[in-house]
Amino acid sequence: MAHYGAKVVVPIDLKKKPWEQKHPLHNRWHPDIPVVAEVKDGEVFRVEMVDFSGGGITSDYSAEDVKHADQSIKKPWEQALPLHNRWHPEIPPVAHVKVSEVFRVEMVDWTGSVIKDDDSAADVKFIDLSTVHYLSGPIRVVDKKETPAMPGDLLAVEICNLGPLPGDEWGYTATFDRENGGGFLTDHFPCATKAIWYFEGIYAYSPHIPGVRFPGLTHPGIIGTAPSMELLNIWNEREREVEENGHKSLKLCEVLHSRPLANLPSTKGCHLGKIKKGTAEWEKIAKEAARTIPGRENGGNCDIKNLSTGSKIYLPVFVEGANLSTGDMHFSQGDGEVSFCGAIEMSGFLELKCEIIRGGMKEYLTPMGPTPLHVNPIFEIGPVEPRFSEWLVFEGISVDESGRQHFLDASVAYKRAVLNAIDYLSKFGYSKEQVYLLLSCCPCEGRISGIVDAPNAVATLAIPTAIFDQDIRPKAGKVPIGPRLVRKPDVLRCSYDGNLPTTKNPAASM
Amino acid sequence: MAHYGAKVVVPIDLKKKPWEQKHPLHNRWHPDIPVVAEVKDGEVFRVEMVDFSGGGITSDYSAEDVKHADQSIKKPWEQALPLHNRWHPEIPPVAHVKVSEVFRVEMVDWTGSVIKDDDSAADVKFIDLSTVHYLSGPIRVVDKKETPAMPGDLLAVEICNLGPLPGDEWGYTATFDRENGGGFLTDHFPCATKAIWYFEGIYAYSPHIPGVRFPGLTHPGIIGTAPSMELLNIWNEREREVEENGHKSLKLCEVLHSRPLANLPSTKGCHLGKIKKGTAEWEKIAKEAARTIPGRENGGNCDIKNLSTGSKIYLPVFVEGANLSTGDMHFSQGDGEVSFCGAIEMSGFLELKCEIIRGGMKEYLTPMGPTPLHVNPIFEIGPVEPRFSEWLVFEGISVDESGRQHFLDASVAYKRAVLNAIDYLSKFGYSKEQVYLLLSCCPCEGRISGIVDAPNAVATLAIPTAIFDQDIRPKAGKVPIGPRLVRKPDVLRCSYDGNLPTTKNPAASM
Amino acid sequence: MAHYGAKVVVPIDLKKKPWEQKHPLHNRWHPDIPVVAEVKDGEVFRVEMVDFSGGGITSDYSAEDVKHADQSIKKPWEQALPLHNRWHPEIPPVAHVKVSEVFRVEMVDWTGSVIKDDDSAADVKFIDLSTVHYLSGPIRVVDKKETPAMPGDLLAVEICNLGPLPGDEWGYTATFDRENGGGFLTDHFPCATKAIWYFEGIYAYSPHIPGVRFPGLTHPGIIGTAPSMELLNIWNEREREVEENGHKSLKLCEVLHSRPLANLPSTKGCHLGKIKKGTAEWEKIAKEAARTIPGRENGGNCDIKNLSTGSKIYLPVFVEGANLSTGDMHFSQGDGEVSFCGAIEMSGFLELKCEIIRGGMKEYLTPMGPTPLHVNPIFEIGPVEPRFSEWLVFEGISVDESGRQHFLDASVAYKRAVLNAIDYLSKFGYSKEQVYLLLSCCPCEGRISGIVDAPNAVATLAIPTAIFDQDIRPKAGKVPIGPRLVRKPDVLRCSYDGNLPTTKNPAASM
Amino acid sequence: MAHYGAKVVVPIDLKKKPWEQKHPLHNRWHPDIPVVAEVKDGEVFRVEMVDFSGGGITSDYSAEDVKHADQSIKKPWEQALPLHNRWHPEIPPVAHVKVSEVFRVEMVDWTGSVIKDDDSAADVKFIDLSTVHYLSGPIRVVDKKETPAMPGDLLAVEICNLGPLPGDEWGYTATFDRENGGGFLTDHFPCATKAIWYFEGIYAYSPHIPGVRFPGLTHPGIIGTAPSMELLNIWNEREREVEENGHKSLKLCEVLHSRPLANLPSTKGCHLGKIKKGTAEWEKIAKEAARTIPGRENGGNCDIKNLSTGSKIYLPVFVEGANLSTGDMHFSQGDGEVSFCGAIEMSGFLELKCEIIRGGMKEYLTPMGPTPLHVNPIFEIGPVEPRFSEWLVFEGISVDESGRQHFLDASVAYKRAVLNAIDYLSKFGYSKEQVYLLLSCCPCEGRISGIVDAPNAVATLAIPTAIFDQDIRPKAGKVPIGPRLVRKPDVLRCSYDGNLPTTKNPAASM
Repeated sequence: MAHYGAKVVVPIDLKKKPWEQKHPLHNRWHPDIPVVAEVKDGEVFRVEMVDFSGGGITSDYSAEDVKHADQSIKKPWEQALPLHNRWHPEIPPVAHVKVSEVFRVEMVDWTGSVIKDDDSAADVKFIDLSTVHYLSGPIRVVDKKETPAMPGDLLAVEICNLGPLPGDEWGYTATFDRENGGGFLTDHFPCATKAIWYFEGIYAYSPHIPGVRFPGLTHPGIIGTAPSMELLNIWNEREREVEENGHKSLKLCEVLHSRPLANLPSTKGCHLGKIKKGTAEWEKIAKEAARTIPGRENGGNCDIKNLSTGSKIYLPVFVEGANLSTGDMHFSQGDGEVSFCGAIEMSGFLELKCEIIRGGMKEYLTPMGPTPLHVNPIFEIGPVEPRFSEWLVFEGISVDESGRQHFLDASVAYKRAVLNAIDYLSKFGYSKEQVYLLLSCCPCEGRISGIVDAPNAVATLAIPTAIFDQDIRPKAGKVPIGPRLVRKPDVLRCSYDGNLPTTKNPAASM
Repeated sequence: MAHYGAKVVVPIDLKKKPWEQKHPLHNRWHPDIPVVAEVKDGEVFRVEMVDFSGGGITSDYSAEDVKHADQSIKKPWEQALPLHNRWHPEIPPVAHVKVSEVFRVEMVDWTGSVIKDDDSAADVKFIDLSTVHYLSGPIRVVDKKETPAMPGDLLAVEICNLGPLPGDEWGYTATFDRENGGGFLTDHFPCATKAIWYFEGIYAYSPHIPGVRFPGLTHPGIIGTAPSMELLNIWNEREREVEENGHKSLKLCEVLHSRPLANLPSTKGCHLGKIKKGTAEWEKIAKEAARTIPGRENGGNCDIKNLSTGSKIYLPVFVEGANLSTGDMHFSQGDGEVSFCGAIEMSGFLELKCEIIRGGMKEYLTPMGPTPLHVNPIFEIGPVEPRFSEWLVFEGISVDESGRQHFLDASVAYKRAVLNAIDYLSKFGYSKEQVYLLLSCCPCEGRISGIVDAPNAVATLAIPTAIFDQDIRPKAGKVPIGPRLVRKPDVLRCSYDGNLPTTKNPAASM
Repeated sequence: MAHYGAKVVVPIDLKKKPWEQKHPLHNRWHPDIPVVAEVKDGEVFRVEMVDFSGGGITSDYSAEDVKHADQSIKKPWEQALPLHNRWHPEIPPVAHVKVSEVFRVEMVDWTGSVIKDDDSAADVKFIDLSTVHYLSGPIRVVDKKETPAMPGDLLAVEICNLGPLPGDEWGYTATFDRENGGGFLTDHFPCATKAIWYFEGIYAYSPHIPGVRFPGLTHPGIIGTAPSMELLNIWNEREREVEENGHKSLKLCEVLHSRPLANLPSTKGCHLGKIKKGTAEWEKIAKEAARTIPGRENGGNCDIKNLSTGSKIYLPVFVEGANLSTGDMHFSQGDGEVSFCGAIEMSGFLELKCEIIRGGMKEYLTPMGPTPLHVNPIFEIGPVEPRFSEWLVFEGISVDESGRQHFLDASVAYKRAVLNAIDYLSKFGYSKEQVYLLLSCCPCEGRISGIVDAPNAVATLAIPTAIFDQDIRPKAGKVPIGPRLVRKPDVLRCSYDGNLPTTKNPAASM
Repeated sequence: MAHYGAKVVVPIDLKKKPWEQKHPLHNRWHPDIPVVAEVKDGEVFRVEMVDFSGGGITSDYSAEDVKHADQSIKKPWEQALPLHNRWHPEIPPVAHVKVSEVFRVEMVDWTGSVIKDDDSAADVKFIDLSTVHYLSGPIRVVDKKETPAMPGDLLAVEICNLGPLPGDEWGYTATFDRENGGGFLTDHFPCATKAIWYFEGIYAYSPHIPGVRFPGLTHPGIIGTAPSMELLNIWNEREREVEENGHKSLKLCEVLHSRPLANLPSTKGCHLGKIKKGTAEWEKIAKEAARTIPGRENGGNCDIKNLSTGSKIYLPVFVEGANLSTGDMHFSQGDGEVSFCGAIEMSGFLELKCEIIRGGMKEYLTPMGPTPLHVNPIFEIGPVEPRFSEWLVFEGISVDESGRQHFLDASVAYKRAVLNAIDYLSKFGYSKEQVYLLLSCCPCEGRISGIVDAPNAVATLAIPTAIFDQDIRPKAGKVPIGPRLVRKPDVLRCSYDGNLPTTKNPAASM
């Protein structure tokens, strides 16, 4: 990374023993140990180091653990029950379920197997994002007397069980190229990158981010009911407004550089389940149907990382039968899913059980907007989660990288908290890209800690210390103290060939 | 509340038994039970009800528990060690401590006893906010050889113990008048309100918000080191910019109505510890010294609710001796502290232990801005917290109450999540003001769940269900099912006499 | 139950509404409500009652949920990889695994499908216990260079994942007839009983014990390595001694009535994996091979309820290859597994990963007995468990039901704690047999709280309150207060036809 | 320790640097490093070692942290409200409290300041145990109408807060001489030993057991109501029986060597609160009054380690006013309190709140014995506890150190589990005495895992790994790997001058 360029380098050859290095290492403090390099005041220099054991202790997982999963999942359009990747009331159900019965939904990963377990991030760089997310469903829900869920009801969906598809126990975390999707920090990290994760039961590890291993808090990124036409129109209208006029009329967060501002309906890449492409019906619906990117009133892509086994989702019903769809399984995700393709994305299955709360929308949801449709689902989190006892917490305030003051802007504050965490953890032997992907998918918590103390919003990012195999807390001794530093390999990475400006941290090289 | 006005009312007289009511109640479903009122389609009506037992079960706490604490804490300016309410490098230390030794800091509540345990919210409405927050310190920290902490070091402060001041075990939660401080939802709730909390050991209960009781996750709202003049100048400059030009040049969050945009230095209400008012030194410093409202690079008002016993704070050191100050004790706070005077505010004590990490700023903190001073503290959360197993989660997306779409704005999304939670909980017998104050001070978690799925940020507010004495989850039966509904009393409340427009929820009365 | 016989009975007919009962019910306190029955001082009487809603609220699960699982699991002797039910060094491995690779082991339930999902406990009453437990394995473990685990090594077995066999998601909890196996409280509960549990993902519910539902802390009851001949001889000798001379020479706990004292090798019911029945080898080994009932130095039936996903077991290696076997999957178990067939017993699978710690027995295990083989495994419990916040704790001291004082006897104290818990919970609408089975399989904790305060050991049994759908805590109001009482159905039950004396609680009917 | 005598010793002088040792150390593996000692096959030898840093990293706490607390607590008989150390219905109340009001009880440590913060264990060795435990109370409890609690009621006591007495923040853990009190493992550890603990807020550390620090789960060891004369007679009779005839008639656990079998009433050392010594009343009561050592039907010395803030105790009431007494504060305790003087013993305070459940004994407690008085209290554990995520678990089975098989004896199994844990942890640089005291007072859990699999009871001891500053889990590398080993100092220790036989572990030196 050129902008961190150092003139003086004290290199390490990791294939050599400590006493074989160009500059032999020392393991005691003593005034007579000869100097190996000199630097001038203010000069950037780079010191490479071995881990504390001189290579005697090696990572549990290494490049040879890149074992390349069998990737024989059928394509979305080859599935027996056709998938869909848009929200629309007229996408016909592919299955019917009764309340109280446990049923199983299987799903492809959100890209429909475009991202591969291979040695390149090119698939991430060049992905056609018009095709995501592939959803399973819709599922029509009826009560014990076969009466369907009706608009105005609440659909209570309990997650009885979930997991990866047997035989397909791997996933990936990635960040898109700035010209093709971006991510929360795309101005800092414009390149497409990718890390592969393999699962050992409830644990995930990545050959591209060595030294971490954590249990999954597995959940569906997307679960939602079909919108009514009225609600769909509201979505399309307000999102078109922001996409078309946002830069002029809206006060956009200036520090978030992901684009486009909104993803409007497009026939390109559209799949509508049982509706055959090329028919008039398809053409009509494809033009109207909402993209699945943002979470909305129907639930959808809410990316709530704790929505795991034992949780319940109370979804508003907008069409007869509720037409429940779900997809985008995450083995694990950090709050915010900051790298965008940011959870550990995978194929998977859900075992669900539904109840219908008749009239529950009126009973339990208060509209927050111009119409009775402006509601949000409610979620109930269960008692089954990995427990972490100790957390290291990074803070951000709503002052951006240029030093500019924003007013109670939690998005700006959270960006700074995430940047702080990335720089901190990179001191422990990681590349910044490794940390960016890690914070996107590990069970870290992003909090709005203070939202009233003008002008600063305070956001925090809390990272469980137990996921690392070294002690990452600040110490009175030097960094790194502790059993190990992380070394290569790094994430898979493409070049960034665009010419959008990047954000530099002005003080980083001072 | 006029705008929820109902034409038909089925009233309850709480002094009467169920069979003595004007409209006698029934406790069975049967077609022959006579109708007591008729309503037309679309008409707003109000049904009052008794709790499930017909009054047989009463709240543990009631209006007679308003026991009015002895409020004999001395005024800030009467304290033996003078307090201060500004940040400035030249406020002289009032005490010296050595690393590794446990020391005790006592503090007044943030207003210096202006807010009383009485029967009116008038003190909240008319408070002079130029005087807050009163801080204890500064404390100069030296190592075992008496060498002080130096700029560039990190000061690791461990919280060994904390609590209310013995004999002063009470606190308050309030929201300011829209014309005098406001709060996160001041456009919805423009009136000053107040609730008093009494402590029973680790638990708090309020006669003004009956039916809830929770253990405190007690913490100091403010802990920080003194800024250097260079850092102070940066603060004053950037905050003046937003205060003076924010409305024109900055893209402000349009849905946050708290004002002013920033609180600039002011001699009014200023206290500078040992520096005598009226001296030239006082005049100079008072004009420069930063207000304590926002959290900044030195820590300060970070309001991290989990910063309780067993936590550590790694603070950057900007001046010789570090000059640690702390104040604004919170018995408990919800993420965001939404009502502004929002935690359970109290006087209290801290038992602290410091370590100095020499050169730690360079070692551990990467500046995120134009200068090496643009850093943030790091926090370490300990293993001692109340455990909650079940959570009810409310979601918000970045669409505001008018239905307008914002771009990945976490502040907007969180506002909607909080509004959703308030309306939901008010269905269980609470007033909206009660819930607003409750969500501000109970141990609820505010999360940034999704920050990449344009155009919607997804924020969530998770509330532990165990703090309520009724089951607040959605049920297939009617609301309210369960052991009890909350009845009067309500929070203390003033009128709002200003004429700023309020935000109405357009769909609420539909 | 005859010994709780009541002369006066106030009956309830659950098919009738409250106002249709023989003695109409009332739902208010009033002096004029007429008396329905009279009892004399000291007389035992029985009052039956409806739940609080008069039948308006019904259990989520009822007799109609007895859905009778498809029980097509093959018999142990029909499996492709033959099972075994004895410990012996010469039972040949059925599979080989390398360290670091995740492998899957599937297993039948411990009885090999003898216990059925049907409407009778007769299968429990008449079971031939000489056939249990059916184990999968042995599995030979080698390192990356194909060198097998060797005696003196430690085998570290990580549980990566586990669960029921897909398609066979049910289990059972039972207690044996006093003449055929008994249980911890067999003198109180001499009848064979059975409850069936069905799984909804991570949750279990039983139509025979309504009103409870809990997440499984699923684990293998048995995991162990093959003993060497030397160790096997030690086992057989010491257990023969207790079985043959125990009543005379040993100071047995007099309040534990399970018999026999030990289960010695027997050719009856013996299965030895690949070794064909009828061969001379089979005859020899069957006579020597240890039964699997007790936990021993090789691990075996240790029944540690927290040994779930993410745990590690460090097993001593006694024979080349370690010869790991496992079985007796438990969906959930309470500490002590008090009813003997006491967990939720099921078929299932494990995904395991092994490491070999060379020389680890000497390094980490100190023999506690006459030979270096007198060691015990070590276990490591992971971070993934259901969280329970509130517990109701029952205590027992080492005074038995006759009032006799024992000396620091934790078994006696625990027996009293369990009896206390059973009687307490039966006040909430359960039969004692229901509670006995429930405490055997729900995630309750059995603790040795005090073992030094002569003459009383103090043992405690802690029950998570969240598993019940009613509030089971003591209240100032009458029992039952709260949303529901449990009604029929009850556990499946056989008669006890033996004539061993039962233990009565002398004060129970006073 | 002579019985572990080694012929060859490779010594370390901890005052010297690694390269200054008699046998210079090495920090690389290489064939040319010269041999420093030779041993023969089977020979016992001792290798001493420095910690991994060669002394570069030192313990946070060391001998110089022995800071000797100010021990100015008044003697029990000097207190304004006189203490008592016996249970008897006629000890008069020293205070009255009403239900619902929070009140504070202060207490001395259980020995009344006999054990000192000094440099010798002589006070432990020669303590007069006839004086313990000093209790605060009795406290008479009345309802809001001044009607006292009555026999047959339940007294619900909530622990609102607790802690050490301000200014007296230290405690001790000890084990008694085998001739004077003993402990669970007194046959293995016959010497009196002592360790002092200092508190830093919620944390405790000991200069005598370096390398551990843990948060307290503080609780009163003793809380109970006064017995009626009828109950007192039952106690005295059954305990006299075991003391006088136990060795003959009872089947005692043969592996527990603490003596006497029971502590009968004695006028020696007796304190009876307001009743003046020397009066006839005193003489009568002192002869009848029960010792406080064991837990009994009235609660008393139940030593339930989780009985901390937020807990509730439901105590049976046997005399008018309940006459609640409490004492024996523990900063922290392990399940079993194995070293007998085994918690971190301290003075302290409780803030309590009582409710009376009228008739609650009959309503909620089923007698388990010959009379309605044979009951036990019920406990409710609250949500506020230190969280530990990872546990290392040691197992014991009911085979004793001689290899003898016992029948389902949980006390024997727990003894073996504790011995296993002690030997294991001593491999990490601790003396066995250090571990024995540590396991007695740290928050470890003692479980009855299996009590039905004849002939072996399985007991487990689970230790939270986070309390150590080194990684204590088994590793494929050698012990010790990790950041540090514990070195001196050790616990304070006296000689054992008695001549009772000690139990040796026959295989330990093999």
